[in-house]
Amino acid sequence: MAASQEPLELAPDIVLAKNIFSELAEKTGGRSGITRASYGEGEQLAHDIIRREGNRLGLNVETDAACNLYVTFPGEMPNGRIIIGSHLDSVPRGGNFDGAAGVLCGLSVLAGLARAAAKPRRDITLMAIRAEESTWFPASYIGSRAAFGLLTRNELDEVERTSDGLALGDAIAAAGGNAQLLREGKAHLSPVEIGQFIEPHIEQGPCLVMKNAPVGVVTGIRGSLRYRSASCRGCYAHSGATPRRARRDAVRATAALVMAMDKAWDEAEACGDDLAITFGKVFTDPEAHAFSKVAGRVEFSFDARSESRRTLDKVEDELLRRIERISECHSVRFDLGPRTGSEPAAMSGDIVAALQSSCVAEGVPSIAMPCGAGHDAAVFAQMGVPSGMLFIRNENGSHNPNEHMEMEDFAVAARVLMRICVGASRHD
Amino acid sequence: MAASQEPLELAPDIVLAKNIFSELAEKTGGRSGITRASYGEGEQLAHDIIRREGNRLGLNVETDAACNLYVTFPGEMPNGRIIIGSHLDSVPRGGNFDGAAGVLCGLSVLAGLARAAAKPRRDITLMAIRAEESTWFPASYIGSRAAFGLLTRNELDEVERTSDGLALGDAIAAAGGNAQLLREGKAHLSPVEIGQFIEPHIEQGPCLVMKNAPVGVVTGIRGSLRYRSASCRGCYAHSGATPRRARRDAVRATAALVMAMDKAWDEAEACGDDLAITFGKVFTDPEAHAFSKVAGRVEFSFDARSESRRTLDKVEDELLRRIERISECHSVRFDLGPRTGSEPAAMSGDIVAALQSSCVAEGVPSIAMPCGAGHDAAVFAQMGVPSGMLFIRNENGSHNPNEHMEMEDFAVAARVLMRICVGASRHD
Repeated sequence: MAASQEPLELAPDIVLAKNIFSELAEKTGGRSGITRASYGEGEQLAHDIIRREGNRLGLNVETDAACNLYVTFPGEMPNGRIIIGSHLDSVPRGGNFDGAAGVLCGLSVLAGLARAAAKPRRDITLMAIRAEESTWFPASYIGSRAAFGLLTRNELDEVERTSDGLALGDAIAAAGGNAQLLREGKAHLSPVEIGQFIEPHIEQGPCLVMKNAPVGVVTGIRGSLRYRSASCRGCYAHSGATPRRARRDAVRATAALVMAMDKAWDEAEACGDDLAITFGKVFTDPEAHAFSKVAGRVEFSFDARSESRRTLDKVEDELLRRIERISECHSVRFDLGPRTGSEPAAMSGDIVAALQSSCVAEGVPSIAMPCGAGHDAAVFAQMGVPSGMLFIRNENGSHNPNEHMEMEDFAVAARVLMRICVGASRHD
Repeated sequence: MAASQEPLELAPDIVLAKNIFSELAEKTGGRSGITRASYGEGEQLAHDIIRREGNRLGLNVETDAACNLYVTFPGEMPNGRIIIGSHLDSVPRGGNFDGAAGVLCGLSVLAGLARAAAKPRRDITLMAIRAEESTWFPASYIGSRAAFGLLTRNELDEVERTSDGLALGDAIAAAGGNAQLLREGKAHLSPVEIGQFIEPHIEQGPCLVMKNAPVGVVTGIRGSLRYRSASCRGCYAHSGATPRRARRDAVRATAALVMAMDKAWDEAEACGDDLAITFGKVFTDPEAHAFSKVAGRVEFSFDARSESRRTLDKVEDELLRRIERISECHSVRFDLGPRTGSEPAAMSGDIVAALQSSCVAEGVPSIAMPCGAGHDAAVFAQMGVPSGMLFIRNENGSHNPNEHMEMEDFAVAARVLMRICVGASRHD
C-alpha cells in the first residue's frame, strides 16, 4: 500500500493550497469581503483556477452538464472511487474559506499524491461543486443535485437569480453548461460507482475553538423544521387602562412561547438529544405598535434542527402543544404559516470511524459533532452514498469577511484526508 | 340646601348633552372617525359650541391666555368653587367621547342648575381644557398647565405641531390666546381658590364593562416609568451551528426579561399593589435578522404604571436586577436608553368618598379603580387641588372611532355629579 511504501513523501501540498487561497482572495475579494456568485464571475474564476491546477498536475479534468468540475487521480481499481468535494461559490461579502477550504483540501491531497507518484487503491476525485449558497438562486444544493440528475424542470425554468431574475437554467447555459440534459434528468454521477463522498468544510460555529480541537468529525447533518413566517395575533389595547387579565398581549404570548421552547430544548439536551431551536426574527408591527399600547400582533420565525427525525417530530408536537396552551391562557391566536424543512442526513458510521482513526494516527485531537448547516454531503448521503464531513476549526463563524481558519488546522485536515485516501482499501 | 328644596327639578339636562354630541359628531367627524386637533379647527369648533351654550344659559363665560374656556354658575359663596373639567380635542381619527363626554357632563349639570334656578353653595365652573392629546403637540397637559402658568418658554417656542412644525406658542396666539402672558408664567387659576376639581371621562379600558358598572370612581392616576427605546445586544450567529451555551441570543434574553417582569407584575398584584407592565414594541433588526440566524439585537420599549411611587421604584429595582442576571446568563448587554415617566397623582379621599356616596344615593353600582392613562386631573392634584375623576362605562377602548358610551351611563355620571355640586357644602 502506498502509505506504507512512501510514508515521508506522501503529504498533502499545503504550500499550493496556501497560494491558491491568496490568489482567490486577490481575484474575488474586495474591501468588504469575498464574493463568488453562483454561476457568476467569482465562482467561474475559482473553477478556472482548479481546472488549471488539475491540468498542471496532469490529472483527468472534466465537467458535467451543470458545470461541476471533476479532477481525478487514478487508482488501481476502476470502481468505488472516493470523491472529495465542496463548493467554490460564496455568499455576497462572505469569507474566503466557506466552501473553498474543502476544495483546496482535496486539491492538496491530489497534489501530494501526484508529487509522490502514489498509486492509491481507488480513484480519488476532487469535485468542485456549483451553487451551494442559496442566496443567489433560492434553491438548495443546486450543483450536487444536478450531478445526480435531480434538478427539476420547474427549478431550471422558474428559480431566478435574486439580483436580476435570470432563470437558473439560463444561468447554467451561460456558464457553459447543458441545461437541456439537466431538463431531461440526465445524471453524471451514479451512487453505486461512488465508494465514499467526503466533504471537508470550515466549522460555521464555535465548537472546535471552544473545545480546542483542530478538526471535527461530523456524525450527521441536521435536518430542520421551519416556520419562516409565523405570527401571533392578540388585540391592541391601552397600556395603562387594560388590566392584566383582559389583555390579549401578543408580545407576552410570544415571549412565553420562546421560553417554553427554550425549556424544551434544555430538556432534550439533558436527555442527550441533538437539537437547536432559534427564533431569529421577532417583531411587532412598526405601523401599529407603540410604547403605550399592548401589542396586538407579533411576527416571528421558528427554526429547529436535529440530526434525528424523531427529535424534530417531538419538537413539533411540543410546539403545537405549547401554542394551544398559550393561546388559551393569553387569548391570542397563533398562525404558524407554511411549514418547510429538510430531512436529517446521517453520515456513514464507517467513514466517521475511519476519520476518527486517522485523527488518532495523526496524533491530533478531534471531536465528534453534528453539522447544523446544510451541505452537499447531505445530497450524497440521501442518494445512498457512504458520506462523511470533516470540519476545520474556524473563528467568527462563516458567511462573513471575518472567517478565520489557520493553515495549521487546514494541514491537519488534509493529512487526515490523505490517510483516508491511501488507506481506503481497509474500508471497502 | 338646593337638593332638598327642589328634588324633582334638579336633574342634569341629558337631552342637551345628547344634541351636542350629535352636533360635534356632525361637525368634527368624517368617514374614519372624529378629528379635533389641539388648537386646530375641530377643537375650536367644539369650544365655540360650549361658549354658545354658556351664553344661552346666561352664565359667565371667559377664556384664559391659553384659550381654556370657563363657564361659571354662581353659588352663594365666592370662594372654594368646584371645577368640572375635561378636554375637547381628540386624537386624529378618534372617537366622539374621549374628552367631550366630561365637558358635556359638566354642561348638562350647569344646564340643570339653570333650569331649576338652583342656588348651590359654591360657584360651579365648567372648564373646557385645551390640548390634552399629546399627539398634536408632543407635550403633556398643555391647557391645564397653562392655566396654572406652568408652560415653559421652551415649550412655547420649541414644541412644534407634528403636522407642520408650527410652534406651540404661535398656535395658541393664532387661536386667539396670549402667548406673551404664558411666557411670563401668568396663572389664570390659583389652587387655593379651587375647592374641588372633578374630571368625568369615559373609561379607556374594559373594567366597567367587565364588572357591569355604569361608573367608576378613580382612586388615583397612575404614574409611569418608561424606557421608550431600550435594546438588547447579543451576537448574530448561525442557527444550526451555534450551540446553546455559545449563543448570545438577544431574542431569548429579551423573552426572558418579558417573562420575568410578567412574573413580577403577577406577584405585585398578589400583594395588592397596583401595577401594569407593558412591552409594547419588541423587534429584531429588519436589516440584519433572518430565520436562520440567532438574533444579535432586539429593540424594545418598557412601560410600567402604578398609583404608587413605591411600587414604581420596586419595579425599577426588579427590572435592573433581572437585567443584570439575564445579561450574565445570556452574555448579552441591555441598554435601557433614556428614562422618562410621570408621578402618580392621588385623588382626594374626600372626593372619592363623596362620589361613592352619591352613587349609593343614586342607587347605582360603582367600582373604585385606578386610572391608567394621564389626565388633566393629575395637574390639579399635583397643584394641591383636591381632585377626583369619575369614569363612565365605555366599550372598545378610546382613541379610536369605535368608542361606545351609552347615554344611560352618561346620565348616571351627570346625576352623580349634580349631587356633588349641590351637596358640596357637606365637604367644605
